[in-house]
This record gives sequence, C-alpha cells and structure tokens, in this order.
Amino acid sequence: MSLPATELAGDLIAARYRAVRAATEQLCEPLTIEDQVVQSMPDVSPTKWHLAHVTWFFETFVLGRLPGYEPFHPEYDYLFNSYYNAVGKQYPRPRRGLVTRPTLAEVLAFRRSVDAALVDALERDEIDPSGRKLIELGLNHEQQHQELMLMDIKHVLFQSPLFPAYHQPPAHEGTPPGTLAWTTFHGGEYAFGATGESFVYDNETPRHKRRIEDFELANRLVTNGEYLEFMADGGYEKPLLWLSDGWAQIQEAGWRAPLYWVERDGEWHEFTLGGLQPVDTEAPVVHVSLYEADAFASWAGQRLPTEFEWEHAAGSQPVTGRFRGAGLLHPAPSAGSELDQLFGDAWEWTRSAYEPYPGFKAADGAVGEYNGKFMCNQMVMRGGCCATPDDHVRSTYRNFFYPHMRWQFGGIRLAR
Amino acid sequence: MSLPATELAGDLIAARYRAVRAATEQLCEPLTIEDQVVQSMPDVSPTKWHLAHVTWFFETFVLGRLPGYEPFHPEYDYLFNSYYNAVGKQYPRPRRGLVTRPTLAEVLAFRRSVDAALVDALERDEIDPSGRKLIELGLNHEQQHQELMLMDIKHVLFQSPLFPAYHQPPAHEGTPPGTLAWTTFHGGEYAFGATGESFVYDNETPRHKRRIEDFELANRLVTNGEYLEFMADGGYEKPLLWLSDGWAQIQEAGWRAPLYWVERDGEWHEFTLGGLQPVDTEAPVVHVSLYEADAFASWAGQRLPTEFEWEHAAGSQPVTGRFRGAGLLHPAPSAGSELDQLFGDAWEWTRSAYEPYPGFKAADGAVGEYNGKFMCNQMVMRGGCCATPDDHVRSTYRNFFYPHMRWQFGGIRLAR
Amino acid sequence: MSLPATELAGDLIAARYRAVRAATEQLCEPLTIEDQVVQSMPDVSPTKWHLAHVTWFFETFVLGRLPGYEPFHPEYDYLFNSYYNAVGKQYPRPRRGLVTRPTLAEVLAFRRSVDAALVDALERDEIDPSGRKLIELGLNHEQQHQELMLMDIKHVLFQSPLFPAYHQPPAHEGTPPGTLAWTTFHGGEYAFGATGESFVYDNETPRHKRRIEDFELANRLVTNGEYLEFMADGGYEKPLLWLSDGWAQIQEAGWRAPLYWVERDGEWHEFTLGGLQPVDTEAPVVHVSLYEADAFASWAGQRLPTEFEWEHAAGSQPVTGRFRGAGLLHPAPSAGSELDQLFGDAWEWTRSAYEPYPGFKAADGAVGEYNGKFMCNQMVMRGGCCATPDDHVRSTYRNFFYPHMRWQFGGIRLAR
Amino acid sequence: MSLPATELAGDLIAARYRAVRAATEQLCEPLTIEDQVVQSMPDVSPTKWHLAHVTWFFETFVLGRLPGYEPFHPEYDYLFNSYYNAVGKQYPRPRRGLVTRPTLAEVLAFRRSVDAALVDALERDEIDPSGRKLIELGLNHEQQHQELMLMDIKHVLFQSPLFPAYHQPPAHEGTPPGTLAWTTFHGGEYAFGATGESFVYDNETPRHKRRIEDFELANRLVTNGEYLEFMADGGYEKPLLWLSDGWAQIQEAGWRAPLYWVERDGEWHEFTLGGLQPVDTEAPVVHVSLYEADAFASWAGQRLPTEFEWEHAAGSQPVTGRFRGAGLLHPAPSAGSELDQLFGDAWEWTRSAYEPYPGFKAADGAVGEYNGKFMCNQMVMRGGCCATPDDHVRSTYRNFFYPHMRWQFGGIRLAR
Repeated sequence: MSLPATELAGDLIAARYRAVRAATEQLCEPLTIEDQVVQSMPDVSPTKWHLAHVTWFFETFVLGRLPGYEPFHPEYDYLFNSYYNAVGKQYPRPRRGLVTRPTLAEVLAFRRSVDAALVDALERDEIDPSGRKLIELGLNHEQQHQELMLMDIKHVLFQSPLFPAYHQPPAHEGTPPGTLAWTTFHGGEYAFGATGESFVYDNETPRHKRRIEDFELANRLVTNGEYLEFMADGGYEKPLLWLSDGWAQIQEAGWRAPLYWVERDGEWHEFTLGGLQPVDTEAPVVHVSLYEADAFASWAGQRLPTEFEWEHAAGSQPVTGRFRGAGLLHPAPSAGSELDQLFGDAWEWTRSAYEPYPGFKAADGAVGEYNGKFMCNQMVMRGGCCATPDDHVRSTYRNFFYPHMRWQFGGIRLAR
Repeated sequence: MSLPATELAGDLIAARYRAVRAATEQLCEPLTIEDQVVQSMPDVSPTKWHLAHVTWFFETFVLGRLPGYEPFHPEYDYLFNSYYNAVGKQYPRPRRGLVTRPTLAEVLAFRRSVDAALVDALERDEIDPSGRKLIELGLNHEQQHQELMLMDIKHVLFQSPLFPAYHQPPAHEGTPPGTLAWTTFHGGEYAFGATGESFVYDNETPRHKRRIEDFELANRLVTNGEYLEFMADGGYEKPLLWLSDGWAQIQEAGWRAPLYWVERDGEWHEFTLGGLQPVDTEAPVVHVSLYEADAFASWAGQRLPTEFEWEHAAGSQPVTGRFRGAGLLHPAPSAGSELDQLFGDAWEWTRSAYEPYPGFKAADGAVGEYNGKFMCNQMVMRGGCCATPDDHVRSTYRNFFYPHMRWQFGGIRLAR
Repeated sequence: MSLPATELAGDLIAARYRAVRAATEQLCEPLTIEDQVVQSMPDVSPTKWHLAHVTWFFETFVLGRLPGYEPFHPEYDYLFNSYYNAVGKQYPRPRRGLVTRPTLAEVLAFRRSVDAALVDALERDEIDPSGRKLIELGLNHEQQHQELMLMDIKHVLFQSPLFPAYHQPPAHEGTPPGTLAWTTFHGGEYAFGATGESFVYDNETPRHKRRIEDFELANRLVTNGEYLEFMADGGYEKPLLWLSDGWAQIQEAGWRAPLYWVERDGEWHEFTLGGLQPVDTEAPVVHVSLYEADAFASWAGQRLPTEFEWEHAAGSQPVTGRFRGAGLLHPAPSAGSELDQLFGDAWEWTRSAYEPYPGFKAADGAVGEYNGKFMCNQMVMRGGCCATPDDHVRSTYRNFFYPHMRWQFGGIRLAR
Repeated sequence: MSLPATELAGDLIAARYRAVRAATEQLCEPLTIEDQVVQSMPDVSPTKWHLAHVTWFFETFVLGRLPGYEPFHPEYDYLFNSYYNAVGKQYPRPRRGLVTRPTLAEVLAFRRSVDAALVDALERDEIDPSGRKLIELGLNHEQQHQELMLMDIKHVLFQSPLFPAYHQPPAHEGTPPGTLAWTTFHGGEYAFGATGESFVYDNETPRHKRRIEDFELANRLVTNGEYLEFMADGGYEKPLLWLSDGWAQIQEAGWRAPLYWVERDGEWHEFTLGGLQPVDTEAPVVHVSLYEADAFASWAGQRLPTEFEWEHAAGSQPVTGRFRGAGLLHPAPSAGSELDQLFGDAWEWTRSAYEPYPGFKAADGAVGEYNGKFMCNQMVMRGGCCATPDDHVRSTYRNFFYPHMRWQFGGIRLAR
C-alpha cells in the first residue's frame, strides 16, 4: 500500500486503533458462537477466523518487530496467516471452517493480549514511523475484514432453511427512483489514481494521466424491477447477451437469478441481513456477478463503465452515501437525483480488468503481497456498499473480485 | 430390524430411554459449542446434528403416530432426517456442518421437549406394542450414534494443529501381547444369524445354515508394531499386495500410513481421543481401510476371515472386552490369551461383502430403509470397539463400511 | 486361472491359435481406421489397443520366456500392458485413446511378427507345457477381448450423431415370449465351481460345497416391454425401490432409461450394432446397471438370483444360446420355453458380490493378477451374451462388473 | 471483424481462396489418419474437425445465404459449429475427438463440395459484397485454424512415448544471441489499433489515442538458457515471484518446466514438431504460460510489456520474421540485432488483459461472436510465431489466451 505521507501522533493512532477494533467486535454481537465457526464456501471465512486474522496482522507486522515480543501462541502464525507466503505457510483456506480450537473465547483472549501489547507499545512510544504506518495499514485492513465479516455471515446464515436474520433494519421510506437518466462527461486526458498524501492502498498508485473518450453514465444503479424485466425477457437463456465465460458459468452453476433470491409460491424473495424479504422492485439489484452485470447491460443496449470513467465521474462528488453507518446493510432505492449512489449501497462492477497502474511497484516486504499478486483474472469494482465502513473508501479506491463472484454486495451501473 | 420378541414393560422402557438419552449427552460434556457444529468431511456429522437426528427419530416414528402430536419445529423434519426417503426430503448430507441455526441450545430444547412427550406418553400407556418396539429400535439407533459421535468428534478435533484431547484416558498396564498364535476351527454346516428372540437388527436375520471349511484364526488383533514392519518393508509401494481398487485408492489419496498417524521428527505419532501420542507398538493397529487390512494380510501370507468364520469363532465366547465403558476410547494391547479381543478394542474387517442373508426381508415402512438399502459395495465388520456401548453388540451383529473408510475404529485380525 | 489339466498337442494349439487370432481381426473388418483409435470413456479401449494388448500378452508371457527373443518394440511393453504391475508400468488407461502412434498398420505388423514367432516356436516344439498353458490362457484372454471390442466399438459409434451401424444383422423371427413363468429348485448342499480338468479361470476354483435354499427362477430374461412398464410407473423416481448407492448414481448421472436408449419424437429407440432401432418390446432389456436390475426386481416384487442359484440351475442345461456366432450381436426375444436364455443373449446380473471361493489361491506370477485383485466392489454376472464367442463360457464362468456399469450386454433375470 | 474497406474482385478472391484452402490440406500431408482423429485435451481439436469446421464456416455464412443451396449433410451444422450460438447448438467441444464418423475421407469430400460450390458462385458472380467480405473473413479464419492445427497436432503427437516427428526441419545456423540489450521509447499520446482500410479483425478497432509512459524493451526474446537459470535458482519454488493465481496453478498442475520439456538422464529435452531434441539454450523459451512469463520477469527484476508498449515499438518495424514459411515450426535464436523477433518465432505475452478498445462494437449477426464475447479473463499476445502464416499478422493484431495456457507458441519479452 502507499503509506500515509504524514505521521500520526501516537495517541491519535491509539484512539483510532481502539475504535476500529471495537467496531469489529460490535459486528459480532448479534451472532451465536455457532455462527462464528462455520465456513459456507471456500471464499467465506468464519467470523472467528476473521477476528483472529486481523489480530495476527498486528502481531506479525507490528509487534513481531519489537524486541522481546513473544507470540501469543506458536501455532497461530500458521492458523491465521491468510496468504502472506513471505512470512510462512498457511493452514489451507478451504478448511478454515473445520478448526474448532482455538475456541472463540480463546481468540478473543488473543485479541485482548495483542490489543494490550500494541496500545502499551504506542503509549511507551516504542513503535517507529514505519511501524505506525503498518498500524494504519492494519486498521484499513481490519475495516476491509469488517465488510467481509458481514458478507460472509450473510452467506453462512443463508445455509439454514430457517433464514435467520442478523438484525432488524430500520424502516426507510423511499420515493420511486424513476426512469434512468444520463449524465454526459467529456473525454480528454485526466489524472487518475492517488497521490498518497493521505492513506491509500498501493494499488491506487501511482497517480498518472490517461485519456478517456466522451461518455454518459446512468444516474443510479439498476433496480430489481429492471433486472426482473431482463429475467422475464429470457435474459438467462439468450447466449448472445453473454460473455463466453459467463454463459459457461451460468450453465454450470444453474444460475437463473441473483444470489440470495428464493422463489416462494411463485414470487421472488431475497435473503438479506434482515431475513427473507419480498424483492423490492425499486431497490438496486445486488449480488450479481460481472457476467450477469455485463449481460444485463447488453440486453439494455448499453455497457458497463470502465473504472476510469467511474473515477472521473466520482472524483467531483462528495464521498457520501449509504454505508454501514446507515444501518440498513442492504441497498435502498435511489432518490432519483442526478448521479446518485456512486458511493454506498452497492459496489459497482466496471468493465476494467484489475491491472497495475503504469509504474506500479508493490510495497517492499511481506505487505507487498497485499494487492499486487492479485492483479490477474479479476475485475475492478468501485464505490463501496451498504456494508462498507463509512470512512473507508474514496474515489480512487479499487476493489476487485473474480467475475463469477456474487457474495459481495455488487450491483450494476450502466454507461454508454 | 428384527423386533424384540418380548414386549418390554412401559416403566422399564422409560428407564432405559432415560439412561440412553442421558449417556448421549454425557458424551458432549468435554466439548465446546464450536466442536459440536463442524463437519470435517461428508461422512462425519456435527455433534449437534447427531443430538437432533436421534431425537427426530423418536419424534417421527413414535410421537408422530400419536393423535394430536405437533412437531417441535416444522423445518426439523427436513433438517434432521438422515436418509429416510419414505418420510420426506433431506437437507444435503455434505452440508450438515453449514447450519448454525438451530443452535446447540435450541437442539437441546428439542431433546427436552421430545423426552418429556415420550416419557409422558409411556407413563400414560399411550404407546402400543409396535410403538414400543420402535422405541427399542430408536434406543439401539441412538447407541449407534453415540459411537458415531466419538468417531466424528475425533475427526473434527484432528483438523486443528493444536491436536486437542477429548479426554484424559486412565493409565492401562499391559503385558506384551507376544507372537501371534492360531486357533483351529473345524469346517462343517453351522447356523448363522439371529433368531430374533431378543432385539437384533433385521440384517442379522434370518438365522440360516451355511457351510464353512476348516480354518485358523489369529489369537489377537494385528499390532502397530507388526504394521510398522509392513510399512518398513515397503508395503504401500508393492502393487502385488493390493486389491486393484485399493492400489488405486492409496495412489489417489496418497496414503502411506493409517489415518491419524502423524510423523514428527522421524517418529510416528497417533492422534487419539487423549491427544497426540507416540505410536504404541504393542497396541492394535486401528483406523485402517479394508484395503490396507487386506494388503497387510497378503504381506503376512495370510488372509482376512469371512464374517461367518468370525461369527463361528465368536459364538462360543462371552461378549466381553474393552468397550466404551472401559474408558480408554482407544484399543489397548492384548493380554496374549487365546482368542483375545474378539469383542471390543477394534471392529474387525472381514473379507465378506455386506449382503442379505438368504430369505432376508427388510422391515415394512420407513424403518425398512434402516439396513437393506446399504447392502451393496460395503464390507462387514464384526465385534465392536473401544467406542461401542457395552451392551450394544453380540456375535451376530453386522456392522458395515465402504472398503476405503478409515475413520471408524477398524483393525485387523488374520485368518488362514 | 486354473490351468488345463491335459496338455494340448502343439499342432492343435497352433490351429486354435490361428483361429482365435483370425477371428479377432475379422471383427475389425467393418471398421474404419478412425473407429479403431478412439476411446469414448475410460472403461472403453480403442480397437487398436485391444489388437496390440492381446498380442503383448503372448509376447510377454510366452515369447518373452524363450531364450534370445527380442521384443518387437521397446516401448510396447509400456503402451500395451493393461494392469500387470508385476511386469512393469503402464501407460495411463484413460489416455489410451490419445496415442496415434503406433498406427493401426504398425500394430497389425506387431501381430504378424508375434504370430510368426509363436507359431514357429510351437512348430519347433520350443514351448514347454507351462508355456502351452499360458497360450491357452492367452487365447481365452483374447476371446474376452473380442467381446470387449464389440462392447467398446458400440460405445464409440454411439458418440456420433450419425448413429453409424457396425453391421446389418440377419432378420430373426420371433414368437412373443409370453408371460413370465417360474421353475422351482430345491435347496440343499451342492457343489459349485470348477474342478479344473479342462480350461477354466482361477476364479472358478476351487470346487466346493455350499448350501442354497429353495428358490424359483424366471424362465426368461426381463423384456423391454416389462422394463417400459417400470419406467412408466415412475420406477426411476421412487427411492424406496433402489439400493442407496443406486439412487445416488441415477441422480448424479441423470439416468432415466437404459444406456443406448434415445427418445425421438416421443418414442424410445435403442442404438444397436445394427444402428438405431425402435425398442423391441419383446426382446430382453439390456445395458442396465446392477442398480437398475435390482430396482426393477424390487418393483416387480421379486429379487435377483445369487450366482449360486444361477449356477445350480444352469449346471443341468446345455451351454447353448445366441452367442456371437448367431450373428445378431443383440439380444433377441425368448421362445418362451422353460428356462430359456440362461446362456447367450445377455449376461445376467446376480445379487452376489464377486468374492473368492473358499480356499481360492491366485496363480503364481504375473498372471496371478488376472482375476484375484478385482475381488472387491464388483458383482458377478453369469451366462454370456450375444457378443460372447460361442465356445467361451460355461456354467461355472464368472464375469464381473462394477454395479454402475452399463456398457456390457447386461440383462435381468428374476428369482424369488 | 472490421471488414475490408475495398472490395476484392471475384477472380482475385477465388485465387486467394484456392491458395488458402490448399495450404490447409498441405499441412495434413505428414499425418496419418489416426493422427487426425484424436483430441488430446479439451483445448485441442482433431485435425479432421478443423478441416470440417473451416469449411462449415464458408457453407454457413456464405453458401447458406445463396438461394437454393442445400447443406452437404444435415448433421454437419451441429457437428462442426464451434461456438456460434446464433446459428444453432454445438456438439460438446471436449468430445470432438470421440466422433469417428464422418471419416476423414468424408470430411475431405465435404471440402471438395463446398469448394466447388463457392468457386462456382464466385465465377458466376452470385456473391454480393457482404458475402465477399465474409469470404475474406473466412480465409483469415482458416489461416488462424492452420496455426491451431500445428499447435494441436504437436500436442497430439506428444501423447505417444514414441515422440513422433511431424517433419524434418531444415538446419539453421545461429550466432549466439548475446546478452540482452534495451531500446528506449518515449512516452506520450499515440494512436493504437487499426483504421480498417485493409482487412483487420473487429477487436483491433476502433483506432484510438492512448497515453503511454517512457519505457524500455528488450531487444530479443528470453532464451532457454536464461529460463534454465530461473529454474536452477528455484523459480518454481518461490511464491513471492508469482501472481497468486499462477502460484495456485503450478501447485495444482505440478509444473516445474515449460510444456513439452522432458528430462532424460538428467538433461532437459524439448518435444518439437521435429521430434524430441536437447534444449537449445540459445533459442527462445516457448510454451510457457503468462504466469511463468510474469514470474520470470519478476525474478529478472523486470516486467512484461503492455500490449500498447509492444504495438508502439512494433509499429515502426517491418512485419518480417520467422513465420511458418521459414519452415522451422520452432523458434530459433535471435541474431542479436536491435529489437529482433518482434514478429515471428513466438507470440509474446503482454501484461494486458484482453479488453474492448474504447468504442468497440462487435460486428452484427453471428460473426459478431467472433471476438467480443471472449473479452474477459484472457490476456493479449502479440507478434505471431513460427507456426503463423506469413501474411497473417500485423502490428495491431491481437491474439488472446487464458493466462494458464501453454500449448500455443508463447514466449517472453521483457520490458522495464
């Protein structure tokens, strides 16, 4: 990651550390112990594993560099390393949900121990600037895992035919979003990416110039109602609408609707963190793959934006929207204004492969594995979603998923 | 199953019901909630599922026939039916470990509710003789699941690199078992199977005559020490020792030792319910597949017994041995006497495919699916093991597993 | 195999050798080069491979023992060994159809060379009695491959939507087979298996006594018409009719009819070696798995015979029936007589797992891999079929297939 | 594809048609019938299928539009359609090698028939300009399949342990390529892609402006000698060198060297269309995946070029190099000049995902499936190779493969 240009004072860091760490644990409050052990597919990790892994990050990259620090447990390095080959072997990812020991209580004790040591070291001013930058990275990392925890627990709870709710969302009143409108942007050579004056990930850098052509962007996300029209028109049965790999994927997986959609008595319902709900035709469609997003766009006679079109449009907007703090944990209908929902509600699939920016260099050391090695076969998503921490994203922020993935809160914005 | 020939009195049944049900729950005492949720492979079921399934058996086959009984929860029939197609669809077996709700506490409440209703019905004498026979079957069924729970939790705990112990077994003093000796039996026409005067499963019937030839049976189970000789002699690398399917299996799975064996610093250890232990060369080898048992026998120049040879030899012996009540939960060395370990310590692989006896008829109704439909591709095991309830097996008892399976406590007795 | 008790004179062996070898090549006459290269599934081998493998058998086990014999080609031992681990490694079975070189012409040259050397050695009387016994085994082995070649080429030709015919079968006139009748046999202790006075395989020995109970056997094979009734009655949708593994198999494979059945314009057709034909309701059903045979028997309220019931019934019958010499290469309707079709038309599934007879010992040396190592997970079939050489089977002959296999000519006879 | 801007006269088209069609058949001359039937992996198609498919293209898209044309055979449309969903269903790709009928002779008759009809129609001037453009496309399509035929037959022949040679390549004398040198290019905004004045594929359009930064390009392809250093330095064992998906791929596939490399007596050999040869340390490494190319570049402290860097460098060069006409069918050492081997020898992996150019529109109708639907998950390769027809590629030509693919002639050029 590109490291913060300005050093944070120790006490500010400690306060932020405490806040982020506490937020993580608050997310677990509605959960039973049982919920926190299970891995419902290889992409999902158990809550218990998330709680330990983000702690392992601080222990390994910050505390581990302090003289005399003794790891909490000799096996945790193996159990809770995700994919950092530079620091050792990893317990196989698809088997994370099979490990019952350490228990949740033991993992929470691990958190307590690392928290105490880290805050203590901060207070004693034993952490040098590079260590502080790693704490800053670790906190952003933990925020990413906060969103993953919500994505993952939604998938876990969906496995039970009881369709248990994670929370009771507040009521939200909506005005119908109205028909799609378009905003025009002029082509030209613009700057993209981040300067790194404040914290950004390394994949957002270096800031560089790039030419884009004239384009128009839809004012809001595609709705469930619009997606139902695509389905009703046989969208899933028309190969000419689909990317070749997408057509193969939907045949193999038998997909005929977004993830979490359940047909009951002839009517579509959607599993949400608030339980099973009738599909709201005015809310954004979510939990679609890039393939479905692209096929929908073809069907609509439009296309998906590139990540640069998106960034150019979003760069002039405030970073506001329905993030996790809105309490919905599900996308809500647009108010219909011009260029709504760029931030929050749902991550937006772009038609851009996740590639290094010109001159990109991964960070040195183990944290160099954070982003760069994933720059192949994945697609960029932009804008954050209803499960993203409120202070986490920005217009240069690049998220990335394989095109078949659906368990993230991914939606569709059209371009042309 | 062949039903008990004599009806049990209601109060005796209620006492036995309470005892068996309590024993099941005592097995869970050493476990954390986390341990009871996970399914470490498709053959394994979570403890929580076992607790619910055996309860579902009583609810469906006994309480469900009583007028006015309302099921505890409408979805439990789907969630906790194992394989009884006659009474409805089943939640997919390989996904049992993904269901976090109902929680363990809710499953225990289900047990309480069914226990109360069933004991109440017994006390009110509302259960007719056929219902009482189904209770008897259900209690034997629950005993089978008690053994499965121990097999399964051993596999679950083995997934953690912490190798957590389930219990602390008592010390047992052993005399070296000495070299293998042989007992001779004379061929002839003998009767096999059960008459059904007391409770037996349907697969043990009908009692019938069958001819066997002269044979000799080893006096004890094959030891780890003997198995280590087989390994040291390249047993896993010599295709001529193996059944064709066995050779394919060990190549594909990469097996080079019994399940639960772990090499550490050049020495073999064995994961037991008492944790990781150095391999005891005098104790019986256990957790081998039929393929390994057969290859070992070939290497030793001997063969495995047929189930009829075993039954003929065991029929004259008392049903005593180290069962679960001995508290070891692991096989212990033979005392070296003549014909030792026929019962307890380890199930013994036989060279007999699991087939219906001449004239076999499955029971009517759903419980007819109990045994008969599995009579293909599996092999018979005999004698019970260190995890079997003390009052559960007999000389006619037929257990059965696919030849590649290793997570049951399966050992080797030679014949010639 | 149990070797022939009497030695054959060299010139008689040479004549028989020439006849069997010529018959193999005659089977290829209707085929194009293309047909002889392809492997349509792992169980199938290319014709070209069969032609080479049976020749390799003579080269390896007979000529290879003669002083000074030089193998035809150094790589053929690797390419054309099927499963004899004792004599070396094997080219992977599922990839046999990927080897275009040696070409068919080169394989035929290999045959010529081995034929010349072997006949020459016979004429010079250089082959000792044990070698002559291996020639006898090799000829029986080649006859088995003749049947495999027909089974396999049928499967290969079926891959083309052109449904090409292998031959034009002669017309056969049939009388309707009439309703099923039953023949009663009395139980008792009888002898089974072969004495080995003339050539038999080792799996037919030793001859031994065994008790069977009273039983009845259907007078003919189950017809397509009867099987269509089973299908029409929802036989493939009723789990209670099926063995557990069978039910899993038909779900996974999507089976709803026998192999080679094709529905066209609402009517069932059957691909035969004579091309695609409307299903003949009076002819025996064929190309069903053991699972389907067993489910049909359950549906009919009957069962399959054991291999011993079959052998007892067949032992008193002449070994006559529609074998390959009849020229049909497809089962034909029974004439309705008493106990018809025991030999020829279709192999009959039995309810007997393929196990060693009491006292069975595999032959010494590499040919000891011929049969014994397959005695696990397979089921015995009896009686030969329309593709079996006329002088190949007998009442003690044991064929064996995995219960899911369907590409052999396997049919159903009921017992009760 | 972008269609040719100028119409070709009928007789010129006919001459070119005859030449391209004849070249295809000349490629088959060294092959046996056996060689032309087999499909050695799903990505490979049998030669026979290629011969038919390219003919099907002309029949379907050109002749099929002429009034009164009758298809040669009703099933060929199903058998020989590759992936054009708009014109009907396709025989499953992975099973192309299982179809023995039609035979090779029948496929050649299909070619004769279509050739006669098409030339006849051209001579009678019955084909309108849009049809002529489709012939032009069909000829370029057939040239692509000529290269595929060589790639595929190499893979087919490699399956045999005899390592048969396709041809005897002419001797080529080489001077050692010397150490790598670098050419510097200046960044700026340049035009990329094709104008479409002469024939190009649609994926090369529209021509558009794009900014690139300063870069340097290696003067030649990476050699086998350099790749052996990477291997000797443990390149395949160091996870930090690899893209995440690449590391997973080499573990799963067990790759430790390029495709076609065979170790014999401790020395590396390479299977070529001229048979098995010792690895030439001065020749370019070929048959590596994008993953291996990227890992090699990381190990060398450099990177792969983007497709735009490559196009910018190549745009000023003549389109000359060792293509198929050089007769080698294998890459040869560079002469060491400045910027050698941009064309011919080996396709060059770029670090660019295969994406649509800004404003890209697929062609209307079925041929719109030619390119656009593959623009996901694949990477661009540039420059043509030793198996590419001499008049086929250009500096704007975009080839594309999945990053794990190795059977194409793919090599490595470094950038920095």
